Amino acid sequence: MGKVKVDISTSLDGFITGPDDRPGQELGAGGEQLHEWVFGLASWRKPHGLEGGETGPDDDVIKEASTDIGAVVMGRRMFDLGERPWGDDPPFRVPVFVVTHRAKETLEKEGGTTFIFVTDGIESALDQAHKAAGDKNISVAGGAETVQQLVAAGLVNEIQLHVAPLFLGRGKRLFDQLGKEIELERIRVVDSPGVTHLKYSVVK
Amino acid sequence: MGKVKVDISTSLDGFITGPDDRPGQELGAGGEQLHEWVFGLASWRKPHGLEGGETGPDDDVIKEASTDIGAVVMGRRMFDLGERPWGDDPPFRVPVFVVTHRAKETLEKEGGTTFIFVTDGIESALDQAHKAAGDKNISVAGGAETVQQLVAAGLVNEIQLHVAPLFLGRGKRLFDQLGKEIELERIRVVDSPGVTHLKYSVVK
Repeated sequence: MGKVKVDISTSLDGFITGPDDRPGQELGAGGEQLHEWVFGLASWRKPHGLEGGETGPDDDVIKEASTDIGAVVMGRRMFDLGERPWGDDPPFRVPVFVVTHRAKETLEKEGGTTFIFVTDGIESALDQAHKAAGDKNISVAGGAETVQQLVAAGLVNEIQLHVAPLFLGRGKRLFDQLGKEIELERIRVVDSPGVTHLKYSVVK
Repeated sequence: MGKVKVDISTSLDGFITGPDDRPGQELGAGGEQLHEWVFGLASWRKPHGLEGGETGPDDDVIKEASTDIGAVVMGRRMFDLGERPWGDDPPFRVPVFVVTHRAKETLEKEGGTTFIFVTDGIESALDQAHKAAGDKNISVAGGAETVQQLVAAGLVNEIQLHVAPLFLGRGKRLFDQLGKEIELERIRVVDSPGVTHLKYSVVK
C-alpha cells in the first residue's frame, strides 16, 4: 500500500490561503504569493501543459513530490473553487476523490484526471484512493480541513510544507484546530531564497 | 542603533506554549518538547550557570543569537511566569524591559540582569531598551502578544523560528492575530534532526 502524502505551500505564520477565497480569487487576497516560487518550475509547468521552466533544487522537490502519485484526495470546497481554473485538462492526471456531503456524478476530464465524489466520509475516500492507486502513493491536495482531519486521524504518512517568506496575517490556517499532539520526524530540509521545503514523516 | 531580534521555539503548527500555561507548568502542557533541542547545548547552558554541553550547528545558532545582545524586551505575563524558575541569577545578564499595565519597582538580580517595568507602552519599552543597549542588539523574548505587536508595528528587524518536529495542536500561537501582510527575506536555514532554524529579516 502506498504512502499518504501532504504537500502544501504556507506562509511562515501558517496560512494556506488569504482571506476571502472565492471564485475569481481562489487563493484568497494575497494568497498567490504563497505559490510564486512554483510557477516557473519545469516540474510544475509540465502537468499544467506548459513548456520549459527552471530546474534546480526547488524543481527537484516538486518532481519528487509528484512522482509515483496514483490518486488524489481533496475537499469539496477545493474542487468547487478549482474546477473552473483547472479547465478541461486538470493537472492531476490520476483519479481524484472529492470528499463531499452533496452527491455528484463522476466527472471525467482530459489527460487522465477523473473526479469521483465520495459521500460516505473521508476515510472511505482514502480507502477508494488506495484501491485506485495500488502500490502508488496518495496525495492529499487540500483544503485545510481535509488535511487536518486526515492528520488528526493518523492517516497521513508524510507532510511537506513549502514555507514562503512572508506573514500573510489573515486567511485560512492549515492547522487551525488539530487539537492533539503529533510527533514528527524530520526527513529533510531544502531551501532557496524563495521558499523553504520542510519534509517530515508522521511518527505512529 | 542595534537590531531588534526575535528568537523563539515553535511547533510546526506555530505554537510557542502548550495549553494551560501557569506557575509550575510555565511552558503549558507538552510545551517543554519545543525546547528539548536547546537544553543540552553549551551556549544555552553557560548563561544558565551550567557547565559543559554540546557544540555544533545548533549550538552555533544559539551562540550567534545571544551575541551582542544589550537589552531584552518581554511581556508581563512572561515575567510573572518566569521569575520563579529563573531564580536569583536569571540567564539574561542585561537590562530586561517588561511591558506592563501594573507598575512595579525595578528588580536587580545577580549576574547583570535587571528587570525594569515599563507602563507607558511597548514602543517606550523598546526606546528604553535601545538607550540601554547602545549599539548592541535587542532581543524580544516573548510572549506571543509582545512579539506580535512589535512585528505588526514594523519594529522588528530579524525573526528566527526554531521549529521543533511536532504538532502541538493546542496552546498559544506565536502569530495568531497579526492581521496584516509582512514581507520577509530569508537569511539562512540551519537544520538538525531535532530542530530547524529559519532566520528571516523583515522587509520594510
